[in-house]
Amino acid sequence: MMSPQFTKARRLASEAIGTAFLLAAIVGSGIMGENLSGGSMALALLANTLATAAALVVLITMFGPISGAHFNPVVTLVLALRGELTARLAILYSVAQTGGAIMGVLVAHAMFGEPPFQLSDKLRDGSAQALSESVATFGLVATILAIMRFKPDFIATGVGLYIAAAYWFTASTSFANPAVTIARSMSSTFSGIAPASVSIFIGSQLIGAIAAFVVFRWLLREAEE
Amino acid sequence: MMSPQFTKARRLASEAIGTAFLLAAIVGSGIMGENLSGGSMALALLANTLATAAALVVLITMFGPISGAHFNPVVTLVLALRGELTARLAILYSVAQTGGAIMGVLVAHAMFGEPPFQLSDKLRDGSAQALSESVATFGLVATILAIMRFKPDFIATGVGLYIAAAYWFTASTSFANPAVTIARSMSSTFSGIAPASVSIFIGSQLIGAIAAFVVFRWLLREAEE
Amino acid sequence: MMSPQFTKARRLASEAIGTAFLLAAIVGSGIMGENLSGGSMALALLANTLATAAALVVLITMFGPISGAHFNPVVTLVLALRGELTARLAILYSVAQTGGAIMGVLVAHAMFGEPPFQLSDKLRDGSAQALSESVATFGLVATILAIMRFKPDFIATGVGLYIAAAYWFTASTSFANPAVTIARSMSSTFSGIAPASVSIFIGSQLIGAIAAFVVFRWLLREAEE
Amino acid sequence: MMSPQFTKARRLASEAIGTAFLLAAIVGSGIMGENLSGGSMALALLANTLATAAALVVLITMFGPISGAHFNPVVTLVLALRGELTARLAILYSVAQTGGAIMGVLVAHAMFGEPPFQLSDKLRDGSAQALSESVATFGLVATILAIMRFKPDFIATGVGLYIAAAYWFTASTSFANPAVTIARSMSSTFSGIAPASVSIFIGSQLIGAIAAFVVFRWLLREAEE
Repeated sequence: MMSPQFTKARRLASEAIGTAFLLAAIVGSGIMGENLSGGSMALALLANTLATAAALVVLITMFGPISGAHFNPVVTLVLALRGELTARLAILYSVAQTGGAIMGVLVAHAMFGEPPFQLSDKLRDGSAQALSESVATFGLVATILAIMRFKPDFIATGVGLYIAAAYWFTASTSFANPAVTIARSMSSTFSGIAPASVSIFIGSQLIGAIAAFVVFRWLLREAEE
Repeated sequence: MMSPQFTKARRLASEAIGTAFLLAAIVGSGIMGENLSGGSMALALLANTLATAAALVVLITMFGPISGAHFNPVVTLVLALRGELTARLAILYSVAQTGGAIMGVLVAHAMFGEPPFQLSDKLRDGSAQALSESVATFGLVATILAIMRFKPDFIATGVGLYIAAAYWFTASTSFANPAVTIARSMSSTFSGIAPASVSIFIGSQLIGAIAAFVVFRWLLREAEE
Repeated sequence: MMSPQFTKARRLASEAIGTAFLLAAIVGSGIMGENLSGGSMALALLANTLATAAALVVLITMFGPISGAHFNPVVTLVLALRGELTARLAILYSVAQTGGAIMGVLVAHAMFGEPPFQLSDKLRDGSAQALSESVATFGLVATILAIMRFKPDFIATGVGLYIAAAYWFTASTSFANPAVTIARSMSSTFSGIAPASVSIFIGSQLIGAIAAFVVFRWLLREAEE
Repeated sequence: MMSPQFTKARRLASEAIGTAFLLAAIVGSGIMGENLSGGSMALALLANTLATAAALVVLITMFGPISGAHFNPVVTLVLALRGELTARLAILYSVAQTGGAIMGVLVAHAMFGEPPFQLSDKLRDGSAQALSESVATFGLVATILAIMRFKPDFIATGVGLYIAAAYWFTASTSFANPAVTIARSMSSTFSGIAPASVSIFIGSQLIGAIAAFVVFRWLLREAEE
């Protein structure tokens, strides 16, 4: 998923623009879903799921050949642990992703006539939420590692489908991404998260990502080795 | 996406028939969705999204090898800027697309027993709507340029998924297409747009398309060049 | 889509079993959707759409290599007009499809504890319904002819997506199939059609199919020919 | 679907982890769907369908190359009948699947703050339910046998789409899997099944699976043989 034929500036721009569009899709569709749902949380989350998953498939297909389309610091971390990018580049990626994510929230707010800068008061606390984020991120990293190994051409669709499922099978609706978590704390709309809940989410995501890295390093090793 | 083995008459017919079916799907499913939704706007838009996205995937697969399946004057414009078709052919394409789009609205009205000629009174005004159309069209053109470059066989699915997401993450439900905008002004049903809002939509679409053309010309350039 | 390596008995069994499963999916999901929807017609039709489209993709993939997976007398007719099967085999196919379709309705009724033999009283009359069936069948046949020509590996997905869209963009919810129409007249559940409306539906379907055959014979002819 | 290059330990772990994730998706999305649906059973089942089908596609893609991704004792049984794995390995697979399934239910309960050990009181009895499970499992095994033969690369998507349809076209919502049935008896949430109904479900599943094995052994035999 790395492309040396593109310059570092283009790869960082790719991570930033892609993550910005991802957040515009998540936050924008959350606002639209809530506006139209007449109070049905299930319909709002269904719309949010549809838009997020479809956007992920498109964005990973578009930006994957340029920068790998991580859009997610824990994905970048795991790939750095595997030696696929240097620590220095991983940090630059994470900064581009987080900056892009915040830009995406601002764009979503502007498209819906919302004030640009907001802080969410939606607390997402407790051990059930923390476990949900660890499971969600374990599954996301596992999906990426296994599909990159066995069917790399399916990675965009696989990640989109995984997130569609995980929006519903975890209690936290699966943020599974520190850049997304930080950016969503800056929106008091449907998809927001209170700043006070951010650190527990990110900690749980790191635990899930590392666990998936360890388990799948064992699981994906062939008998011959 | 150009096919010299088909005559110009067939290519123009392909653009007209494809855009007609696209509009029949958009306007028809809007009517059906509103009829059956019992007042739930979220359900009506969900049905509209499903039908539009599914139709796009099918129609681009069917007509792409004949005419490119642009179905959209700003897509034709961007491809003309890239030198993929002449200015003269681009104008003929746009006329065929717009004529086809209007035909599609008439067919949708006839299928639902509606009066054929209507004008919408659904104002879609203000800077949030305008920004939404620029973002929507930026994303559509970016999707097309990046996927044509990296995975052309995925273009139909990619465009369908992009529009499914954009119906929900923009405040305007993403027209992103001047021919669609003009035709939808001629329907006072769910998916209509007041004629007074047409010019701001088309202007915003042009801005978004040109911006995507410029940004992605830079982004997609490889390091060796 | 023809497979001489399978015996005629297997090909007819393939058409019958496939069409039976298709009708079980259509009628069964209609009953389930109506049962669970609490009166929301949009939710019932959404469930019906999802199940029908998903079943079509699977069934055409499963049975296509054996018999072509027409499951539809007008599709068989059009392919016979193109010389892909004999008149005699086309008649046998149509009988197998219609018999299978009726079997599928009986299975759906049994799965939901409904009386096996029923007649629908849901009149689907008038010129809007007739036009809808012609448009729906035109589109179905056009989809099949164009995708068989340009991307045959996509035919199952293409037909599934087309029907998903057409359930919503036509006023008749797109039967587009005489065997399906006859079988659905034998169910007084959500997806039924009154026997009195059957002949106008089938007539309209034939008109749409023949029109698509003529238009696409012209459209798909390459310039060199 | 067998991979001798992975050790037996890894193959059993693959079946256990995959089935655990499948059950976490089924039970978790059932809880979330019911929580958010405001009493609309259709919306709850729609969410449950979406999450289950998307998870299946991802999980079969991830684990198929390691262990075959059966996740289901009747699938393992049918493949053992075809000589694709030994009776001993089939038993180990079934144990791993059932153990994994129960683990998945525990994880789902923990993610939603539910007590870990539960028993469902949702009776799913009577001949309509039994027939539904036989039809559902017949269709699942038929799908697997036909797609493995004609388009093995499509198996993950095919199974996901089949289950999405079958959730709606059978009265039982298609368990079609003894390990899933046992594990779901241990959850008193949306997707539970009373322990008293388990044996009739499993018996019906076996009948459907064997019937599909017999019918498709005949149907898929080529004329030359």
